[in-house]
Amino acid sequence: MSSNNYYDVTTWPVGNPSEDVGEVINSIIADIKDRQAATDVNNGGKPGAVIYLPPGDYHLRTQVVIDISFLRIQGSGHGFTSSSIRFNVPEDEWPDLHELWPGGSRIIVDLPLGVDGEASDEAKGAAFYIERSGSPRISSVEFSNFCIDGLHFTPDGSELPPENTYVNGKTGIYVASANDSFRVTGMGFIYLENALTIHNADALSIHDNFIAECGSCIELRGWGQASKITDNLIGAGFKGHSIYARNHGGLLITANNIFPRGASSIHLDGVTRSSVTNNRLHSFYPGMVVLAANSSENLVATNHFLRDHEPWTPFLGVDNGLDDLYGLLCVSGNNNSVVGNHFSEVIDAQGIRPAGATPVIIRLLEGAGNFVSNNHVVAMDVHSTSSDSCFSAQVDALLTTGVSDGLAVTAVLVDPGSARNTILDSGTDAQVIADRAVNALRATPTVGFRAAHADSIAGSAPTS
Amino acid sequence: MSSNNYYDVTTWPVGNPSEDVGEVINSIIADIKDRQAATDVNNGGKPGAVIYLPPGDYHLRTQVVIDISFLRIQGSGHGFTSSSIRFNVPEDEWPDLHELWPGGSRIIVDLPLGVDGEASDEAKGAAFYIERSGSPRISSVEFSNFCIDGLHFTPDGSELPPENTYVNGKTGIYVASANDSFRVTGMGFIYLENALTIHNADALSIHDNFIAECGSCIELRGWGQASKITDNLIGAGFKGHSIYARNHGGLLITANNIFPRGASSIHLDGVTRSSVTNNRLHSFYPGMVVLAANSSENLVATNHFLRDHEPWTPFLGVDNGLDDLYGLLCVSGNNNSVVGNHFSEVIDAQGIRPAGATPVIIRLLEGAGNFVSNNHVVAMDVHSTSSDSCFSAQVDALLTTGVSDGLAVTAVLVDPGSARNTILDSGTDAQVIADRAVNALRATPTVGFRAAHADSIAGSAPTS
Amino acid sequence: MSSNNYYDVTTWPVGNPSEDVGEVINSIIADIKDRQAATDVNNGGKPGAVIYLPPGDYHLRTQVVIDISFLRIQGSGHGFTSSSIRFNVPEDEWPDLHELWPGGSRIIVDLPLGVDGEASDEAKGAAFYIERSGSPRISSVEFSNFCIDGLHFTPDGSELPPENTYVNGKTGIYVASANDSFRVTGMGFIYLENALTIHNADALSIHDNFIAECGSCIELRGWGQASKITDNLIGAGFKGHSIYARNHGGLLITANNIFPRGASSIHLDGVTRSSVTNNRLHSFYPGMVVLAANSSENLVATNHFLRDHEPWTPFLGVDNGLDDLYGLLCVSGNNNSVVGNHFSEVIDAQGIRPAGATPVIIRLLEGAGNFVSNNHVVAMDVHSTSSDSCFSAQVDALLTTGVSDGLAVTAVLVDPGSARNTILDSGTDAQVIADRAVNALRATPTVGFRAAHADSIAGSAPTS
Repeated sequence: MSSNNYYDVTTWPVGNPSEDVGEVINSIIADIKDRQAATDVNNGGKPGAVIYLPPGDYHLRTQVVIDISFLRIQGSGHGFTSSSIRFNVPEDEWPDLHELWPGGSRIIVDLPLGVDGEASDEAKGAAFYIERSGSPRISSVEFSNFCIDGLHFTPDGSELPPENTYVNGKTGIYVASANDSFRVTGMGFIYLENALTIHNADALSIHDNFIAECGSCIELRGWGQASKITDNLIGAGFKGHSIYARNHGGLLITANNIFPRGASSIHLDGVTRSSVTNNRLHSFYPGMVVLAANSSENLVATNHFLRDHEPWTPFLGVDNGLDDLYGLLCVSGNNNSVVGNHFSEVIDAQGIRPAGATPVIIRLLEGAGNFVSNNHVVAMDVHSTSSDSCFSAQVDALLTTGVSDGLAVTAVLVDPGSARNTILDSGTDAQVIADRAVNALRATPTVGFRAAHADSIAGSAPTS
Repeated sequence: MSSNNYYDVTTWPVGNPSEDVGEVINSIIADIKDRQAATDVNNGGKPGAVIYLPPGDYHLRTQVVIDISFLRIQGSGHGFTSSSIRFNVPEDEWPDLHELWPGGSRIIVDLPLGVDGEASDEAKGAAFYIERSGSPRISSVEFSNFCIDGLHFTPDGSELPPENTYVNGKTGIYVASANDSFRVTGMGFIYLENALTIHNADALSIHDNFIAECGSCIELRGWGQASKITDNLIGAGFKGHSIYARNHGGLLITANNIFPRGASSIHLDGVTRSSVTNNRLHSFYPGMVVLAANSSENLVATNHFLRDHEPWTPFLGVDNGLDDLYGLLCVSGNNNSVVGNHFSEVIDAQGIRPAGATPVIIRLLEGAGNFVSNNHVVAMDVHSTSSDSCFSAQVDALLTTGVSDGLAVTAVLVDPGSARNTILDSGTDAQVIADRAVNALRATPTVGFRAAHADSIAGSAPTS
Repeated sequence: MSSNNYYDVTTWPVGNPSEDVGEVINSIIADIKDRQAATDVNNGGKPGAVIYLPPGDYHLRTQVVIDISFLRIQGSGHGFTSSSIRFNVPEDEWPDLHELWPGGSRIIVDLPLGVDGEASDEAKGAAFYIERSGSPRISSVEFSNFCIDGLHFTPDGSELPPENTYVNGKTGIYVASANDSFRVTGMGFIYLENALTIHNADALSIHDNFIAECGSCIELRGWGQASKITDNLIGAGFKGHSIYARNHGGLLITANNIFPRGASSIHLDGVTRSSVTNNRLHSFYPGMVVLAANSSENLVATNHFLRDHEPWTPFLGVDNGLDDLYGLLCVSGNNNSVVGNHFSEVIDAQGIRPAGATPVIIRLLEGAGNFVSNNHVVAMDVHSTSSDSCFSAQVDALLTTGVSDGLAVTAVLVDPGSARNTILDSGTDAQVIADRAVNALRATPTVGFRAAHADSIAGSAPTS
């Protein structure tokens, strides 16, 4: 046996990887399948292969279709650089820029779109399309350390410049059928309308990737279980999801640093018995974490939520349409645990919607039996500023603290549709709005509360 | 100098890697040692090497013996697919399956077993055996991104079909002597009785692996310190441990997604000053996390525990022998912190053992000074169902919530052998069973508790 | 196109990588820049490259200067072994050692130092120096899986043996200018005065590295945002920082195992809206986590803090100069959350400084509005011992629990400079020292506290 399960797209005899790496990879996959068919099924013989993309620009004009297990596609560089900042630099300054585009091992998605510049559908617009029917489910496809770049966004009918729309009908990786033990690691995804869309995942790992400036970053659809989304840098566009999951159980979302400007940071739809823990979340809008459609028995713990205002001029006035009563965390479901989170709400009171409203931090909208404990809410009213420089505006906003006025907020709002919740130490008496006939509350103590009293009371309790 | 510290098993002149990759790798290691011996010890000169396994099937008929530092063995694919599901598919359907075996860069462990099919001992059955006496401890051996497959389980004397026993005397990696700074990353382990057994580890990293369908997955034995087991997908067999550690200090177990059906999810034996945080844990039995043998000063925080019932027909009736009074978390030790965990107990009340008992969630069995705070327990009685399809049965069970009856449980049970514990907000008054003369308790408030009272009391306290 | 963006230092025609890998890499970078300049900027064409270091010893006598994006430098082995232990073994035993030096893909930093053995400045002493002015910021430089070894420490004027000073003027990687989306993964850093010094980072990822026996390990300077330091094994020298950050916002520090003997484990200076969660921290001195210079709105949650005594003979008497009133966690800033941490203070009461003082665990020094809740403090007085064997001394100390006397500590000390803090369930009434006229306190209940009373009080509250 020679190393014939190792392929390099730049040395494969079929096609030209610079012009159409999709044709090259499909040809390699066909070769893998031909060779695997010749082996003895009783002793295995379908080990898959690795396809290597050295650093370089690779236009992809033919969709890669994967229907074999154990295929690993790997590069040597996630290649992120901000296209969004560059496209918002005046064009006459472009010649002065060191580079204009992402790099590394870079797939440039050049699939044909629909007529009139319309986006084709999400699956057709995918650089990598994975589907296999029958049994077993396709397993252990791995993507590692390369870049998928959608290159441009397109007009969306709004007044936004085309490159700011987050729309282009392009998808990075689209998995259509049930799958097991997939891995996506060390990748970069840029300027795609959908970076990663995966249906029916089992034991999926999305780990240590850079997924930003995409319409939506990670969407787990259909149903699934026992997967993890960990240690990623993520930031979707204002229309999309940074992390979205539907009908998943046992999903672990942890150690992610999720930055603006996704319509949500994490949106769970009918997700149960899953964890959202230990993430750093930053958004310019309400609705940062949404547990919707009877999402139940989940743990939302020790996350850092920061909601502040859009500081970058090109996106001023753009938002996700939610008002400040929606909550930074909004729960529709039962028996969830919301424990030990920090919330910073740093906004300009003049911009609150509806005008004059008291913004809501945690909202229990529907369901019962949720446990909300030991959350710390910090709120302040700041004079909103913005800048033409994305990075310095964000850093300036991030580092400005403690010099502004306090802002009155509702730390926890329990709607009539939610009952039998327990709310402990997550807001002062005045900051928690709930029907106390049907919810158990213990307000965060305020100055004057004496710890000592508990013991003295306890001491006296046997006699009372 | 040429790249002569890079070896590819498929191009090495000694042996045939398809037939016996063990012979090939041992020959490579001998070559590395020969070449290292020729260098000047005063200027280093023992850099080790990397051995590459391209995707492919590699039978291993000779144990690999490693006694040099700085050896990295790497492949291009962790290659997991479920052998358990396949072996439980009727054999006449196998020809319709896309593939029968795991893949990627796959070591097939074909070591000779004892007589009469009996398993040989764990060290002799290891594909990779690592031992070195003297000083310094062997350091920086790395395993990355390949698959170790034990192929078959064997009869264990029970009525279980042989492929469901999790017994075969095969081990993936066995480290016999003290070691420093080892790394195991991106690997797959399948159908081994023991995947990873490591003695006397210092600063070990087991990160981002897929270790499933093995008898036991990770066992840290002897003693050790300052190691981490992070971001893995893990699931042991019903007889074994998903994660086991003995006499370790400063161990960090975090961000793992541990699925059934290990006899335990995490079992710590004499482990101190370590962290079990932020994991997603799923089991079909009690005894999910066990702090045994004076395990002390550990932090068990923000984990998600789900215990439900076995949904897959082939394993109905199999369990770990523990009854429902054992606790999902059972602590024998001192001064541990159990904070902010979510527990879901979703079982059929008809199956509770002993019949009619009230199941226990957290049990403090022996020791003193444990701090149990802000844990949320959800319990429900569901009608137990099962299915021939492993995946859909699990997903169905996972996603079914909130439509079933409540189940009475003991949230915290403190045995007479444990005292001076503090239990806060981890169960209602009725759900915490403890001797209040020797333990400090504050029950989770229930409806009717008014947060406001605290302040009014506090206000009046100075006058009392 | 051929794979001409893949370089191997051992096959590059310019220079000798064993003698001066710096010259070789700089020559490769010049080649990359020459070739990139020839491409059409409108269609990208600056993909960068990967430079591979096979396992081997590479002296670096010329500083590598990087000013291009998308450069990945990778090896095949992080190569850590303890030089500190080796240098503290009597020299006549060295011939018996299996190896004397770190290994893997190992850069040996042999840059010229200043006159008289003095260290040159930190930037000049860097093996890899990265700087680029203009726009955009340099992006996606990646370092992966190799070793940077500073070889020796040098006399520092104290009585310490030279190899124990943690001083040598050598730096591993120094990033001087603003940067985006850098990655440092799987690396080893050893015997450098500064391992990683990075200014003005955006979306930086430092993940899964081994950074130990360096003066300082990770320093993020200038300002920055949205970065992550995750899943690393880290341990600085007694003079330096294991993790230091200045003026960062949205930094996620999680899942690190940080061992002694850094002057601090994590030191944040003017850092805001960041997370320190889920780390395992071990130190021999006070001042383990420091939130200084108005560090505000940070979340410090579910970390495990262990402070015990120096057990290794060569470093007896060495410390960071802080006394036991400083606090293991010391906060100067506003609105931080300190939730769910475990603290173990295991020291010899005879050695407390000032003599007879009550050691402080959490100290709120300056600021306002901090939320300290659900922290568990364990303290014990142990007879201090030490050993000539670093590893066994540490393990012995780590595993010794519960056999020693209790030690009185101040769990939380609020200085007059800090006010309006909320302190819940983080110490008994006697263990929390704060002005209760300006801070809200609820002491951890002690034995005799009856959970039931809350409900009875609540029940009676409407009538009061």
